Amino acid sequence: MKKPLRIGLVGYGFMGRTHSNAFRKAGNFFDLDYEPVLAAVCARDAAKAKAFADNWGYQSIETDWRKLVERDDIDLIDIASPNNTHAEVAIAAAKAGKMIMCEKPLSMDGPEGVKMVKAVEKAGVPNMVWYNYRRVPAVTLAHQLIAEGRLGKIFHYRAKFLQDWTISKDLPQGGAALWRLDAKVAGSGVTGDLLAHCIDTALWLNGHISSVNAMTETFIKERKHTLTGKTQKVEIDDACTFMGRFENGSLANFESTRYARGHKALYTFEINGENASIAWDLHDLHRLQYFDYKDESKLRGWRSIHVTDGEHPYMKNWWVPGLQIGYEHSFVHQFADFVLAIGKGEKPRPSFRDALDTQYVCDAVLKSAHTNKWEKVAKAK
Amino acid sequence: MKKPLRIGLVGYGFMGRTHSNAFRKAGNFFDLDYEPVLAAVCARDAAKAKAFADNWGYQSIETDWRKLVERDDIDLIDIASPNNTHAEVAIAAAKAGKMIMCEKPLSMDGPEGVKMVKAVEKAGVPNMVWYNYRRVPAVTLAHQLIAEGRLGKIFHYRAKFLQDWTISKDLPQGGAALWRLDAKVAGSGVTGDLLAHCIDTALWLNGHISSVNAMTETFIKERKHTLTGKTQKVEIDDACTFMGRFENGSLANFESTRYARGHKALYTFEINGENASIAWDLHDLHRLQYFDYKDESKLRGWRSIHVTDGEHPYMKNWWVPGLQIGYEHSFVHQFADFVLAIGKGEKPRPSFRDALDTQYVCDAVLKSAHTNKWEKVAKAK
Amino acid sequence: MKKPLRIGLVGYGFMGRTHSNAFRKAGNFFDLDYEPVLAAVCARDAAKAKAFADNWGYQSIETDWRKLVERDDIDLIDIASPNNTHAEVAIAAAKAGKMIMCEKPLSMDGPEGVKMVKAVEKAGVPNMVWYNYRRVPAVTLAHQLIAEGRLGKIFHYRAKFLQDWTISKDLPQGGAALWRLDAKVAGSGVTGDLLAHCIDTALWLNGHISSVNAMTETFIKERKHTLTGKTQKVEIDDACTFMGRFENGSLANFESTRYARGHKALYTFEINGENASIAWDLHDLHRLQYFDYKDESKLRGWRSIHVTDGEHPYMKNWWVPGLQIGYEHSFVHQFADFVLAIGKGEKPRPSFRDALDTQYVCDAVLKSAHTNKWEKVAKAK
Amino acid sequence: MKKPLRIGLVGYGFMGRTHSNAFRKAGNFFDLDYEPVLAAVCARDAAKAKAFADNWGYQSIETDWRKLVERDDIDLIDIASPNNTHAEVAIAAAKAGKMIMCEKPLSMDGPEGVKMVKAVEKAGVPNMVWYNYRRVPAVTLAHQLIAEGRLGKIFHYRAKFLQDWTISKDLPQGGAALWRLDAKVAGSGVTGDLLAHCIDTALWLNGHISSVNAMTETFIKERKHTLTGKTQKVEIDDACTFMGRFENGSLANFESTRYARGHKALYTFEINGENASIAWDLHDLHRLQYFDYKDESKLRGWRSIHVTDGEHPYMKNWWVPGLQIGYEHSFVHQFADFVLAIGKGEKPRPSFRDALDTQYVCDAVLKSAHTNKWEKVAKAK
Repeated sequence: MKKPLRIGLVGYGFMGRTHSNAFRKAGNFFDLDYEPVLAAVCARDAAKAKAFADNWGYQSIETDWRKLVERDDIDLIDIASPNNTHAEVAIAAAKAGKMIMCEKPLSMDGPEGVKMVKAVEKAGVPNMVWYNYRRVPAVTLAHQLIAEGRLGKIFHYRAKFLQDWTISKDLPQGGAALWRLDAKVAGSGVTGDLLAHCIDTALWLNGHISSVNAMTETFIKERKHTLTGKTQKVEIDDACTFMGRFENGSLANFESTRYARGHKALYTFEINGENASIAWDLHDLHRLQYFDYKDESKLRGWRSIHVTDGEHPYMKNWWVPGLQIGYEHSFVHQFADFVLAIGKGEKPRPSFRDALDTQYVCDAVLKSAHTNKWEKVAKAK
Repeated sequence: MKKPLRIGLVGYGFMGRTHSNAFRKAGNFFDLDYEPVLAAVCARDAAKAKAFADNWGYQSIETDWRKLVERDDIDLIDIASPNNTHAEVAIAAAKAGKMIMCEKPLSMDGPEGVKMVKAVEKAGVPNMVWYNYRRVPAVTLAHQLIAEGRLGKIFHYRAKFLQDWTISKDLPQGGAALWRLDAKVAGSGVTGDLLAHCIDTALWLNGHISSVNAMTETFIKERKHTLTGKTQKVEIDDACTFMGRFENGSLANFESTRYARGHKALYTFEINGENASIAWDLHDLHRLQYFDYKDESKLRGWRSIHVTDGEHPYMKNWWVPGLQIGYEHSFVHQFADFVLAIGKGEKPRPSFRDALDTQYVCDAVLKSAHTNKWEKVAKAK
Repeated sequence: MKKPLRIGLVGYGFMGRTHSNAFRKAGNFFDLDYEPVLAAVCARDAAKAKAFADNWGYQSIETDWRKLVERDDIDLIDIASPNNTHAEVAIAAAKAGKMIMCEKPLSMDGPEGVKMVKAVEKAGVPNMVWYNYRRVPAVTLAHQLIAEGRLGKIFHYRAKFLQDWTISKDLPQGGAALWRLDAKVAGSGVTGDLLAHCIDTALWLNGHISSVNAMTETFIKERKHTLTGKTQKVEIDDACTFMGRFENGSLANFESTRYARGHKALYTFEINGENASIAWDLHDLHRLQYFDYKDESKLRGWRSIHVTDGEHPYMKNWWVPGLQIGYEHSFVHQFADFVLAIGKGEKPRPSFRDALDTQYVCDAVLKSAHTNKWEKVAKAK
Repeated sequence: MKKPLRIGLVGYGFMGRTHSNAFRKAGNFFDLDYEPVLAAVCARDAAKAKAFADNWGYQSIETDWRKLVERDDIDLIDIASPNNTHAEVAIAAAKAGKMIMCEKPLSMDGPEGVKMVKAVEKAGVPNMVWYNYRRVPAVTLAHQLIAEGRLGKIFHYRAKFLQDWTISKDLPQGGAALWRLDAKVAGSGVTGDLLAHCIDTALWLNGHISSVNAMTETFIKERKHTLTGKTQKVEIDDACTFMGRFENGSLANFESTRYARGHKALYTFEINGENASIAWDLHDLHRLQYFDYKDESKLRGWRSIHVTDGEHPYMKNWWVPGLQIGYEHSFVHQFADFVLAIGKGEKPRPSFRDALDTQYVCDAVLKSAHTNKWEKVAKAK
């Protein structure tokens, strides 16, 4: 008989959906000791909360997250609301002794993140941030290859996250749908939204980034604000490029933009090591590109590994070789790993502390873009 | 309040899983009038049925499909058991007035398929065969483009389904895991298993195939049989190639094998028309290749359409542009379409009768491989 | 001091250009004992011959190939005129004791080819047919890999040659520019023009094809004839597909057409062996795709080998790794190999006799398309 | 009767070969008013000069470039010797009234380049720098598309040039073969060798770069010097990354390295505009990737344009559609364009002055890597 894991979800947007799908599916595909129970969803608008609950099978709704956090029949608070709400909810949930899963980025900035880390560590509650791309099987395989030492000394780490959805100057900013364009709610633009993903993966695969030098741009200076109805200055970064140096001596080249016509969600990375290189991109997430210098010389070439075999990370739990899974599965994997970790008394990863390191890189990037100088990156661990 | 749609599943293998996942997910992503209820799963081995039911949330189990078919609290029988069981179960289910969804291929051969078609049409019950690839968004988009007349006169239709999982001569035949190698259970080898998919898509996209000329091969002549423990002749086709002519004047070139090293499930098709060509493959199922002769001449090229936008078939129900779905979603779509169709009193497609046409092509292919001559293809519609 | 190799070229069309370029370049890149001398070019139209000679540096012109063949100051006759002239010129050149290079296909059909083979073998003159694709470095590398036994037992050989240049029904047939549409001059359509290339490569890589079963089609039945001005029946094959069996037990699937919208010269082949598979296409001729089952299992994938390293066939003679060569270089390689072979007293390949085997396959293909039956293939060697 | 254009070549290395091939081939494929005459090749080592002359058909040799420059029977001096010789030879040649073609980069640095520009402009002689990639047909097509305004406002320009040939620490520096690792001869490492190409293309396609911020790295700090035999500090940059801002408001992200395992000569660029994006890479130089937002929305996708049609730049002079050319052809095109320009009394491009702009960007990049600050870029025009 499985133990119930009673989940209270805050937020009902895009991320509320990806998380809910993960809660519902994980147990069908992974052997878990806990049975996820969709106990409650919280949204300020009761009708929207009700509709979401009906669709996904949540047993109850709340309109005030404080009430949700206080409920005795909830074990875990999942935060899927906008960035400026993460800290308050998480700290309250920690105080209430709940396990916490928090959508990325952890916080609005490093100092806020520190408070969150302190709160969960003081409370001793399992905590995790939804940097889901670590759990794309091809990315997990990349991590394995590096951990096995196959790349040798790393020289270069290159990452990009390219989108094109804000090119039109008629797009407004702010409000429920477009809070990502509102600095007060999102904290930053592409840096916290997109580069944060690239940075989390990089820290996981290649270690600490010591220093950065960044450039940001806001191509469209003013947009109508959905809430005020007025044309206001756009305060987020539309694009951000940074160079950097990893602690292991390798060089970083990171870039993100929402003005790359033709790319919807093109998160790519490439890592060049002494003995091998790997590359991956989110638009074909089920493939890993791999070049091995140890291959016989006349037969060397980039291999396109179709990461769908039973031996590949997570894949024996799905279908049969050759049949691909998609974006949503990375959330299923992350939730399954969370449940497996707490079952074994291990720390789910990336933890709040792991995510604080990403926050520190983002902070240094944004600072550098302001100072026009190289900036050192603080370290959470 | 949604009406319940009480499902009784026969079979608990790979297809039992894909169907169950579809039943559980469809309502989260599509607005359906019916609420799927996983009423019962049937398997001869009670323990296996129980484990499957527990995993997927079926409310009860049966060990005799006849009992399942007779139950009053079941609306729909879903057949996911081996090919040689389809006809018997489907005919009984039709007599019992159940809706029927049947895994492909419809039947062991055309004559058996005719009985099934008669049974469901006499009973007037909704019926459908799980040729799921029609519902891959890129394939549905291909169908749209052809229906819109964009290709003009069609000259060529080429399809392949390449796998490599039976190359080892140590692989046995038969039994629960390997019934696809046992002609008595599977009916045929790659023809019914893989080419049937290619043929279903082709008939849907390009119409009737009038005549075929085929070649089959069984590379490994004898294998140990799992059930008898003896080395026995392999009676299925390991590979099958056929040429053919469509009624619309275009030429067919189809091939399937389980001996194509390096390909796990490489179902591909390419269609060349007077004005445009399209190509697709299952290993990157979220992309459609499209060449349009009407493009400005110096800028003509094959477009790689990343079929993840809200405008693309089914995609507005999932995530956001750029984020891909996978194999399993084709089953979700097919089940959602089934439910939508019965809600509107329409005929779900592909129906048993549609699938009978595919069976007729398979029959003619296998006959031609035997007679070494061109064979005419019968027509169900 | 190098010995001169005095060349007399018959024909001044597309192939006259590719050959002339090869004659001029080979010595700059390959260490040859002979110095090619562009002695004469022959064309019925003196003005055209003169213009061609001026452009390429031919020292003289002829307007009657018989005179050219008789000239004492010519060592080698290169035949680049339409197919229906090959036999007559070649046989006369052989009688005159000239070395002979002949554009493909060898002849209008097998019986004519036999006469040509007899003539050159009786005369004992070096002879070669310009099946140039053997000398694309990636294709030569494919040959090496097979010769080294890396593929193991071969199961499948698949080849296509797809073009789209005759789709318009307004295109006339015949005359200098369009003789390839005139059966009397070309012998056949895509079979002799395009499939002949695929067959030559296949025989070289995979051995004798024992039997074939073919289908041809002429999509546009009548076209205006350039020479007569009248609308006449089109007698060539616009498209040809054939299945076949190689002597080594592998299965053949070949197809060619000039009605594949979006493909200009897409010659592709793929070979599936027990241990490895290879694939190549002419549109990216500098790459070879290779899948090796002996790779570590979780890292298996198709490798895209960029065939530009010094170790790759012919490549040390060109530039530096990463810099690609093109179509014309296959002719340079073939001519260099011809010169190297005669320098060493070896037989240049493919010889007339080699090319006769390709002719026999073409003959059987065209016969089968007529009889609608399997046809055996004759053997030249 | 064509006028002779008597060429004197300085240098016999890799670039001496690419230029000589261009001189020999251009007239066969392009209709030129001048007949290139390979008058003399100059190298300090007479035997090497002789061997080179014999191979390529140069009529004479010189061992002192000063004598070559003074010869009356030479019209054009082509400089293909190491970077630290360019200025001296070019200035002397200008004084002698010769036309000058100079291998890239123009000079060791900007101030030296200024002297060269002054010399050729004072002498009024035609002058050009071999930034050959402008003449790859796909790159020329990219230029056309931008000139036609198809991209709209440009947001991003991204370029990389990745190689992997200096990863081994056993590779020595300096000497004839490895002067590119010797800062005294090469001026810089990847910046002048590789990024210079990227910058030239960028200035041509996207205009002036106003400011840059760079990071360089020398991964292997010491190498044996071929000439001294001693282990010495490596003074060139092994890798260089820079961010920048173009005058048109777009953002630059450039990177080059010789430590990117798996890439031989992967020069790539991508340009994102408001209405369209383009991308290209040198490893598949005959393709241009193009995304057009004006395409019908459900059919938008990146087009892979196979740049081999008669309508594409330069291609009508070569073979037939679908048949690709290679690296060397960019030099043929550049030489043909040079000859055509002087025939028409036009200025060949890129001129010395054009190339000085590239030099200024390189200088600012190297300075920024030293100062760790943003640096303004000087302007030649």
